[in-house]
Amino acid sequence: MNENLTADRPTFVTHLECSMTGERYEADRLHNLSRVGRPLLVRYDLDAVGASLSRDQLAARETDLWRWRELLPVRHTRDIVSLGEIETPLIPVPKSGGAKVLVKDEGRLPTGSFKARGLVMAVAMAKELGVTRIAMPTNGNAGAALAAYATRCGIETIVFCPEDTPEINVREIQAQGGRVWRVNGLIDDCGAIVGKGAGEGRWFDFSTLKEPYRIEGKKTMGLELAAQLGWRLPSAIFYPTGGGTGLIGMWKAFDELERLGWIGSERPRMYAVQASGCAPIVRAFEAGEEHAERWEDAHTVAAGIRVPRAVGDFLILRAVRESGGKALGVGDPAILKAVDECARRDGLLLCPEGGATLAAYKQALKDGEVDEDEEVVLFNCATGLKYPMPEAPNWLDRHGAIDFDQL
Amino acid sequence: MNENLTADRPTFVTHLECSMTGERYEADRLHNLSRVGRPLLVRYDLDAVGASLSRDQLAARETDLWRWRELLPVRHTRDIVSLGEIETPLIPVPKSGGAKVLVKDEGRLPTGSFKARGLVMAVAMAKELGVTRIAMPTNGNAGAALAAYATRCGIETIVFCPEDTPEINVREIQAQGGRVWRVNGLIDDCGAIVGKGAGEGRWFDFSTLKEPYRIEGKKTMGLELAAQLGWRLPSAIFYPTGGGTGLIGMWKAFDELERLGWIGSERPRMYAVQASGCAPIVRAFEAGEEHAERWEDAHTVAAGIRVPRAVGDFLILRAVRESGGKALGVGDPAILKAVDECARRDGLLLCPEGGATLAAYKQALKDGEVDEDEEVVLFNCATGLKYPMPEAPNWLDRHGAIDFDQL
Repeated sequence: MNENLTADRPTFVTHLECSMTGERYEADRLHNLSRVGRPLLVRYDLDAVGASLSRDQLAARETDLWRWRELLPVRHTRDIVSLGEIETPLIPVPKSGGAKVLVKDEGRLPTGSFKARGLVMAVAMAKELGVTRIAMPTNGNAGAALAAYATRCGIETIVFCPEDTPEINVREIQAQGGRVWRVNGLIDDCGAIVGKGAGEGRWFDFSTLKEPYRIEGKKTMGLELAAQLGWRLPSAIFYPTGGGTGLIGMWKAFDELERLGWIGSERPRMYAVQASGCAPIVRAFEAGEEHAERWEDAHTVAAGIRVPRAVGDFLILRAVRESGGKALGVGDPAILKAVDECARRDGLLLCPEGGATLAAYKQALKDGEVDEDEEVVLFNCATGLKYPMPEAPNWLDRHGAIDFDQL
Repeated sequence: MNENLTADRPTFVTHLECSMTGERYEADRLHNLSRVGRPLLVRYDLDAVGASLSRDQLAARETDLWRWRELLPVRHTRDIVSLGEIETPLIPVPKSGGAKVLVKDEGRLPTGSFKARGLVMAVAMAKELGVTRIAMPTNGNAGAALAAYATRCGIETIVFCPEDTPEINVREIQAQGGRVWRVNGLIDDCGAIVGKGAGEGRWFDFSTLKEPYRIEGKKTMGLELAAQLGWRLPSAIFYPTGGGTGLIGMWKAFDELERLGWIGSERPRMYAVQASGCAPIVRAFEAGEEHAERWEDAHTVAAGIRVPRAVGDFLILRAVRESGGKALGVGDPAILKAVDECARRDGLLLCPEGGATLAAYKQALKDGEVDEDEEVVLFNCATGLKYPMPEAPNWLDRHGAIDFDQL
């Protein structure tokens, strides 16, 4: 069986620090945001990690997420929780994308989305730090991942989602033991309810970036990508950006890998992809702002990136700018067309948010922003099976005469 | 990138043979059933495989399905088709199953089901042998896998499914470039239409076991399980059995592994799990018959195992009997209860067919057929996300007064 889940391994967290001010916070204690209301980042003794672990040792381990244990915050092996966090495959999409375009298919993770990466880590840390009741606002997939992992280790969960959250998400949260409420509002309205209850001491607040460990889980996307590509990185990454935890996490991962000497100083251009109907990061990027204002009247078929306000806005914008990338908005018609083309031509069913990255890539190609010779990775953040597909109306009467020429 | 998809490796197919009579058939030519109307089995020069490949060499490869290349029929690397056939994880279900119960979660494969294993191989061989048009009857998941892989390599597909096939399956087949028809009948009625068209030379017939290569793909479940458990096998396997390709395939895999000297002569007891509303194999097993008659008025929530008649019936029954296992039927209420319990207690959402294996295991435990100290593997053959879940009715008005004590 998988030793990553059972072997005791050394851990190297030294402290946490405010992503805005750099102020230091103690490790191994419960935290939400920093004193100035910004996300906390986990810091490691990377010299000691490097002395303890080599790339060859890593290569000999099972390839799941927990192989990165020395770069993760969980201290005790007994606190690991797992539903099989496999390494997600890189799938070429030559016909709908191009010869050098790879889709990282995060829909293969537990509960069918990349939210599993963040939540498996946050739940394991909650378990380690003695949390017994968690609440969270969600557009769907994060709540499903939370419910699955928390249920698995006996933590109670209460989840709030916008009333138009896909039915399948609401039901899977409940099926997996979460208590779930639909709310007449958007995700930040749900977040306000969670915040109020947390303020009253009713539960621990698991909102995006409001606890420090989801980002450490999401960081494994960057670690994994580097390992899969033989310790190099692609020229560009197109990432569907709502709360942006994954983009921030990958950017952090690349820094840690460079400090370990496992990769060089080259970085992919990071493209933060949003829907034009909810594009606060794109607007702030284009205006040269450091922070993004709330986007009013948010709407898009890609519910996972319908996030009007991101608490880590400045971290997303900073990573995108440092990388030489951009924030890009794509319309719903382009998103749906990309989903359709990828399935119909390459046999790969993307989620709408994954479709958004393909649409953004095609636009960037047209604009000369990327070259078709550049290796590019698109993140498909969830299985396409969770989303509506066009009707298939053909019907045949087996008792009738079948006109085979018409089939 | 994954060398399993790009490296040229030796192949060892010597011939095919009739599973009933042993009659020999030439390799590298198109075949459906044997002259006596029974499935063909692919045979390899296993001595040569053993001389060419060691378990250590295997361990150094990426863990996906194509790592088993020397035990697979595809001759030319260029004919490999892939959507990321990862090794599926073994997930403990201690609360709903027991301390020694592992679920092999096949829902992580492309198109969300274990059908990907069979179809990736059959489509690659169809490509290799020059097929340009394929037709297939399906209860849903097989058609989806066929459409995805065939589309990916430019083969046309026509799929027929019972009219009450889950809507999501019908739509994903179409989305992935397949042409799909609903038919007022069951899967064998659909099979009759496919057979008629094939007889007229309109397409190649891809029905379960009617072409020889799906079984070679499904066989990788057995190969993979042995490798994951450190070259030993569990005490018992509970397998959801419709057409039975996977059970037959695993049984074949274990023989090949023993002939390679990679495992010993011990075998798991194989439990073929069916729904009581469609249990032809159970009836034949209990009656001591070698073949199973068609089950009339088949009905069950587990659509994937609603197969009234299996062309490989005698191979399923033979494997089950040789293994010391049984064929077991479970009712729909037990199936739904198992799905509910596994999600609500262990955070793992099974498909109904996977739920059937958990229900059968619990029944077998109660009957003293298995012991709770025995290591058992249950096959969850598809992602639970494709199936209906109970409604989640809670609703909250963010403008109203929220009674936090009631949440």
